[in-house]
Amino acid sequence: MSPSNPYSTGLDKNPANFAPLTPLTFLTRAAQVYPHHTSIVHGERRYAWAETDARCRRLASALQRRGIGAGDTVAVMGYNTPEMLELHFAVPMAGAVLNTINTRLDAATIAFILGHGEAKVLVTDREASPVIKEALRQFGKPILVIDIDDPLAQGGELLGETTYEALLAEGDPTFHWQPPADEWSAISLNYTSGTTGNPKGVVYHHRGAYLNAVNNVLAWELPKHPVYLWTLPMFHCNGWCFPWTLAAAVGTNVCLRRVDVDQIYDLFEREGVTHYCGAPTVHSMLINAPAEVRAKKKQPIKGMIAAAPPPAAILQAMAENQFDITHVYGLTETYGPAVMCDWHGEWNDLSIEEQARLKARQGVRYHMLDGLTVADPVTMEPVPADGETLGEVLFRGNIVMMGYLKNEKATNEAFRDGWFHSGDLGVMHPDGYIELKDRAKDIIISGGENISTIEVENVLYRHPAILEAAVVARPDEKWGETPCAFVTLRPDMETSEAEIIDFCRQNLAHFKAPKMVIFGPLPKTSTGKVQKFILREQARQI
Amino acid sequence: MSPSNPYSTGLDKNPANFAPLTPLTFLTRAAQVYPHHTSIVHGERRYAWAETDARCRRLASALQRRGIGAGDTVAVMGYNTPEMLELHFAVPMAGAVLNTINTRLDAATIAFILGHGEAKVLVTDREASPVIKEALRQFGKPILVIDIDDPLAQGGELLGETTYEALLAEGDPTFHWQPPADEWSAISLNYTSGTTGNPKGVVYHHRGAYLNAVNNVLAWELPKHPVYLWTLPMFHCNGWCFPWTLAAAVGTNVCLRRVDVDQIYDLFEREGVTHYCGAPTVHSMLINAPAEVRAKKKQPIKGMIAAAPPPAAILQAMAENQFDITHVYGLTETYGPAVMCDWHGEWNDLSIEEQARLKARQGVRYHMLDGLTVADPVTMEPVPADGETLGEVLFRGNIVMMGYLKNEKATNEAFRDGWFHSGDLGVMHPDGYIELKDRAKDIIISGGENISTIEVENVLYRHPAILEAAVVARPDEKWGETPCAFVTLRPDMETSEAEIIDFCRQNLAHFKAPKMVIFGPLPKTSTGKVQKFILREQARQI
Repeated sequence: MSPSNPYSTGLDKNPANFAPLTPLTFLTRAAQVYPHHTSIVHGERRYAWAETDARCRRLASALQRRGIGAGDTVAVMGYNTPEMLELHFAVPMAGAVLNTINTRLDAATIAFILGHGEAKVLVTDREASPVIKEALRQFGKPILVIDIDDPLAQGGELLGETTYEALLAEGDPTFHWQPPADEWSAISLNYTSGTTGNPKGVVYHHRGAYLNAVNNVLAWELPKHPVYLWTLPMFHCNGWCFPWTLAAAVGTNVCLRRVDVDQIYDLFEREGVTHYCGAPTVHSMLINAPAEVRAKKKQPIKGMIAAAPPPAAILQAMAENQFDITHVYGLTETYGPAVMCDWHGEWNDLSIEEQARLKARQGVRYHMLDGLTVADPVTMEPVPADGETLGEVLFRGNIVMMGYLKNEKATNEAFRDGWFHSGDLGVMHPDGYIELKDRAKDIIISGGENISTIEVENVLYRHPAILEAAVVARPDEKWGETPCAFVTLRPDMETSEAEIIDFCRQNLAHFKAPKMVIFGPLPKTSTGKVQKFILREQARQI
Repeated sequence: MSPSNPYSTGLDKNPANFAPLTPLTFLTRAAQVYPHHTSIVHGERRYAWAETDARCRRLASALQRRGIGAGDTVAVMGYNTPEMLELHFAVPMAGAVLNTINTRLDAATIAFILGHGEAKVLVTDREASPVIKEALRQFGKPILVIDIDDPLAQGGELLGETTYEALLAEGDPTFHWQPPADEWSAISLNYTSGTTGNPKGVVYHHRGAYLNAVNNVLAWELPKHPVYLWTLPMFHCNGWCFPWTLAAAVGTNVCLRRVDVDQIYDLFEREGVTHYCGAPTVHSMLINAPAEVRAKKKQPIKGMIAAAPPPAAILQAMAENQFDITHVYGLTETYGPAVMCDWHGEWNDLSIEEQARLKARQGVRYHMLDGLTVADPVTMEPVPADGETLGEVLFRGNIVMMGYLKNEKATNEAFRDGWFHSGDLGVMHPDGYIELKDRAKDIIISGGENISTIEVENVLYRHPAILEAAVVARPDEKWGETPCAFVTLRPDMETSEAEIIDFCRQNLAHFKAPKMVIFGPLPKTSTGKVQKFILREQARQI
């Protein structure tokens, strides 16, 4: 503003009219307004919001007393337990940064993460002790190790100086924590499981965590007091910011150490679960459960699904079982979901196939994402909104990461031209909804033609005998590359390579049909994504 | 953070990961995602969100072409029409500041506001032309006057250089507006109707408007696509930020030029209204409508009520008529509602009287208000949470105003000691809910004892013959002051001064009972608040 206008003076920030945005405030409010409402359920353990608040303050003060403060990293190797939830508040209350580690990683990668993230503390679940013991050996530096000794953990040993509960006992339940001086301060660190090279450390700030936590409420029309089942690992993008969302909505966190379909239906019944998030495998597991298990669920439940579009058959089965599914999309770099297939009421009148086609689209930006586009990554020209022209999906706004820790080269590369480059390829439909077509590296180039592996997979999923499918490029002397399909069949179903290839040729341009089909289980990440780099390696060696 | 920690370098703001918060983004998104969803209904006029977006862009570009930009004030004298809604987006899109003027003000006050706010433009509804003509004469400086020529306006004349629609026609519907460079930029200016002296200009910023717009969704569990009836004047605290809330929720704004109970029920029926806000008078008007009018409403409707606690009888009648009421509280300085009586499910099991007692409390902070307390305004010591000790209600956080325009003295006074001083007196209950007891200046001091006028009024409201009541201090030689009651009786009801005083003595400490009762209608502000300064003057002259 020009200095001459009346709004340019005498209207400054002060403690009465400005506070840094931080999701920690939602915990304080939940404890003040609903102190007795159940915050966390885990087996026989139950906490209320006032207790959760007091435990978080205890832990934060105990960490500070041990010298942990601003800019220090606290790493956690944990499952979906109360401790994981508490750490999402207690660590930033102490001014520190929470680094949740994927529980399926190998010891060498964990050791790399501890070193790169400069962790001062490692909180670790007893069940993870075999890999952590080896990781600590490889890490080889002094670090304060705290054990989560969960009665529900299977096996393992205590490795650390003290236990989580003993550390809590050192702390002050009335500890007066300070919000960050600047909302542009790191709150968490999430390493991406890159397919090549070392993982990159994605840094979130208090401002973004606050905004995406709230946006989850808007996106899902989340009411007060949801009962949320933790099918999504909290180590994955901080559980899509849902630990903070649940505090804002004063909900109940129902913990779950592992995705087990019997236990899930037991908890649906016992706790009256209303919401959950998960990878597509969770959803197909739910609908493929035996009828007597499924009968335990009486209430309608809302699910958020990410990472892959739900095929029509799954969508229909979910609807028949009263699961209301919202399809979302995002990356570790976007705090989890930042795009949603915002559902138009009139689409409910369409055929189930048409609904599946619409719901398979990733959709539109979250309310608090500033921009979403599909563009040529070199010229930065947006692609025409024709549903056909491929471009890179680009994001911008407050729910995009601060950057990669200690990696300015990768940060600058990801943020070039003022947008975050996702590396995902997609199209823009005429109605402004985006649809992913592939990862840039997953595109198969055969005889000079591009083949989208997702397009081929979508056809395979329509085959009645196929439960799961993944397509990768296989080197070929004549064509350069050809599509190679890996499929898992449904129980008691049979088919043949020739029959599947024939099915694809009936439903696709012939050059897009797989030249080879391999049967067996698909290798997956802990979040249910198929590990295509493993399949590409297998295809290469055949 | 210390410069040595790994998070202190290489993680800076850039266009990919930072955007200033502004509620204008919600309009862009609504138009992109739901272009055909109805945005505004006004008589026979209906707009969809894409049209509203295009009209706002037109207006913003037309204003810019006429030289209006950053830090310029655009004043509006308008009723709840589509133009008022559009101005909430178009004016800040042009970089300017929206100053909505209370339609019930006198010409001299309007002239003062135009001068003090340095308005460059005045947009004015034809119906307001008598008072505006005189205000412009008194103002006496050149200003661009634009007429809203609404077919539903009653009488009046066109005063300006051009009409609103003609100005729109000058603009570009694809205008690429710029968000503010800093979210700490003024978006609107609201003059408070002070009871003495000149009104003060409360300045809101983009950040606060964004946050409170979202907080309305959280507070009300507002679903997608609400149908919102504009019973609350948009000139009042920018309609409590609901113009922006409705864009975020992609709702439908049902306009209403004046609060008319037949028209309200017609719109309930015709438009399928789901939500509305209003002063207590609106709610009693709704339940006191004839049965055949009330029969038009088929659906449950949620109402937000502010400015006075609902007596038990009104609450019960509202519930019987399927109105679900949320009690909120705030001031012009807090963007409208910033406190809510967050309702605990188990309270539904209590008696209706007990529910009314609980619902009469103003409650707890909005999610995005950082702090709310009741304290001694001199020592700043919080009062004990005993539900009895009086203190001043204090606010702090992002939904507190930037300050008073060109009034650093009043700003500093209001923000002393790091809190916004509301001037309202209240108590803190043991469960952390606050309850207003009075404005500081409304307390009656009789024989050295404090008497809360609200306490006396609550008793009067329980009297079966009394429709409305207000109590003020009357000078008294012996006692200093004594309570004087002004009451309006229900139609066809009769009672006497002696009977009312006797009723109060049965339900209050005797010294708190009114010494005098005066019958007749109560003078009110445009927002339904009783103008106690008029009653105090009357009481003094008796």
